[in-house]
Amino acid sequence: MSRLERLAARLERPLLVTKGVHVRYLVGFASSNVALLVEPLGHTRLYTDFRYVEAARAVADVELVRTKRDVIGALSELLAGQSVAIEAEHVSVAAADRLRAGGAELVSTAGVVEGLRAIKEPAEIEAIRAACRIADAVYGDLAEERFTGRTEKDLAWFVERRFRERGADALAFPPIVASGTNGSRPHAVPQEVEIPAGTLVTVDMGGLVEGYNSDATRTFATGPLPDRLAEAYAICAAAQLDGLAAVRAGVTGAAADAAARSTIEAAGLGEAFGHGLGHGVGLEVHEAPTLRPESADTLAAGNVVSVEPGVYLEGLGGVRIEDLVAVTETGCDVLAGFTKELVTVR
Amino acid sequence: MSRLERLAARLERPLLVTKGVHVRYLVGFASSNVALLVEPLGHTRLYTDFRYVEAARAVADVELVRTKRDVIGALSELLAGQSVAIEAEHVSVAAADRLRAGGAELVSTAGVVEGLRAIKEPAEIEAIRAACRIADAVYGDLAEERFTGRTEKDLAWFVERRFRERGADALAFPPIVASGTNGSRPHAVPQEVEIPAGTLVTVDMGGLVEGYNSDATRTFATGPLPDRLAEAYAICAAAQLDGLAAVRAGVTGAAADAAARSTIEAAGLGEAFGHGLGHGVGLEVHEAPTLRPESADTLAAGNVVSVEPGVYLEGLGGVRIEDLVAVTETGCDVLAGFTKELVTVR
Repeated sequence: MSRLERLAARLERPLLVTKGVHVRYLVGFASSNVALLVEPLGHTRLYTDFRYVEAARAVADVELVRTKRDVIGALSELLAGQSVAIEAEHVSVAAADRLRAGGAELVSTAGVVEGLRAIKEPAEIEAIRAACRIADAVYGDLAEERFTGRTEKDLAWFVERRFRERGADALAFPPIVASGTNGSRPHAVPQEVEIPAGTLVTVDMGGLVEGYNSDATRTFATGPLPDRLAEAYAICAAAQLDGLAAVRAGVTGAAADAAARSTIEAAGLGEAFGHGLGHGVGLEVHEAPTLRPESADTLAAGNVVSVEPGVYLEGLGGVRIEDLVAVTETGCDVLAGFTKELVTVR
Repeated sequence: MSRLERLAARLERPLLVTKGVHVRYLVGFASSNVALLVEPLGHTRLYTDFRYVEAARAVADVELVRTKRDVIGALSELLAGQSVAIEAEHVSVAAADRLRAGGAELVSTAGVVEGLRAIKEPAEIEAIRAACRIADAVYGDLAEERFTGRTEKDLAWFVERRFRERGADALAFPPIVASGTNGSRPHAVPQEVEIPAGTLVTVDMGGLVEGYNSDATRTFATGPLPDRLAEAYAICAAAQLDGLAAVRAGVTGAAADAAARSTIEAAGLGEAFGHGLGHGVGLEVHEAPTLRPESADTLAAGNVVSVEPGVYLEGLGGVRIEDLVAVTETGCDVLAGFTKELVTVR
């Protein structure tokens, strides 16, 4: 069954799909201004404006409707009198009000297309694996580079260049290069500061292959480390392996998180691991399912998720180690291959 | 007055600001998971999670509230019993439902922060000008490059590299390089196809400086052109000048659009110009005000807008020429400088 057919089979009423990445997933059409109306019996209309209409003619299995630039305005007329499901997490209050004012009855849904996307097809996993392999190669390049005396920004640009030169279509997100005390900020932005010797440098990066993202983190040492950072690295690395060992179909996101978290807590560093263990990765860098204490998700075969514990010591530094894995019935297939032993760079 | 103070002065009740770029504009703090509650008397709370809380401590004039990862969940408890304005265009139906279920009364607003952002401060215009100057330099680099025989993708990567090497912090958006028949798609994606001789190549690109975007388009010729493409270029270039001449404070976005559109229509090519004349540019590549037939906006001094007519001939090719301008009381200050004469490349 096609993705559209699988979606249609789950619907009780027409679903208005307005999130761009969902449209791309369902019909392979990328646009910043597009909507799909998918009916339970399988008829699908695609709405877009002049700028995209020529490309949209190539989309299979949809009826193309050219609208003005204001697609929601057009839909508010076209959907008058109809009962339509919306993706409540992706439709703004203003858009919903306009659709209702036009005479549509809206029924909120959540997670329908996300649920399909969370179970990857084999070709999707292979695209993510290819994107992970590029990241592995870039880590290999990085390990040969001088870190000390260069700025975080300079190294981040090196990462971007290498991803592209090694075949990524784009970066998955702006790389994080966080050295020294910046390393205690999980989402640090690379700064114009020179990377010091004798500290940890967290490098979180990913590339895009055929629309699919990779997401990987390794933490390098720039020479001998203070004991607390060396200990933080060892604990984080152990927790990451414990997290990997816990991941398989049927395990909850909360339980997978706990497997890694308990290792960090046992070392007395629970407060230093303030984020979740991981998240789904695919067409988006953050998607379903989630692995964290409050997650309501259960892992399923075909999920691709990150496993990325961290230990963040404010005023001192931080470490995070992250692999992507494809969940299987019996465990997981680790898609990344660069070493997780502590690598010391110049 | 600070931006926060200017916003507070416009409020009748507390405004919940959930759009990340609005938070960045108001308090200079960038995060993917953040909210501000701005009160009319000026007290402001900033909500974010563990990953960002260390960086958030540096934000001036706000009370920092650390929440769990689910900021909306936290707010649904914290706002119980309060009447709060929301940015209805940026709050999802699901988030609004959760806030209401927690006991908040929500009042929809639209365009409040956008209205502040649309009038740029001098330093903002200078950042955009700096980003435009990098684009000018990259067009100069491009004019020296061979186009024919190289792929659109390869040239797009050349553009990306040069922006970064010339000092842009990032690209404003993935560059468009659209040659030959691809040029009739205003938002074409660069392909693995060799650029042919004797056609037009549209290059739409921008860079980021201090968080501000540039957005520029030039169209190159790869040798002598068929008459219809040469004519399309000349008409587009004339329309672009007519658009520039019409831009000044007090003119409506619809009137500015009409000034350029009438030139293209007079040449019998009105159907080939299917998008609007322009849009505001700043922290986002597309922001207020808009210049198009159905625009309800009126230009004001301090707006920075694009002026970008295009002529798209399906099956043949296309042309677009775009400058950014800062609107003044008497006209506009063109922020871009690369020639708009037809440049022929190898």
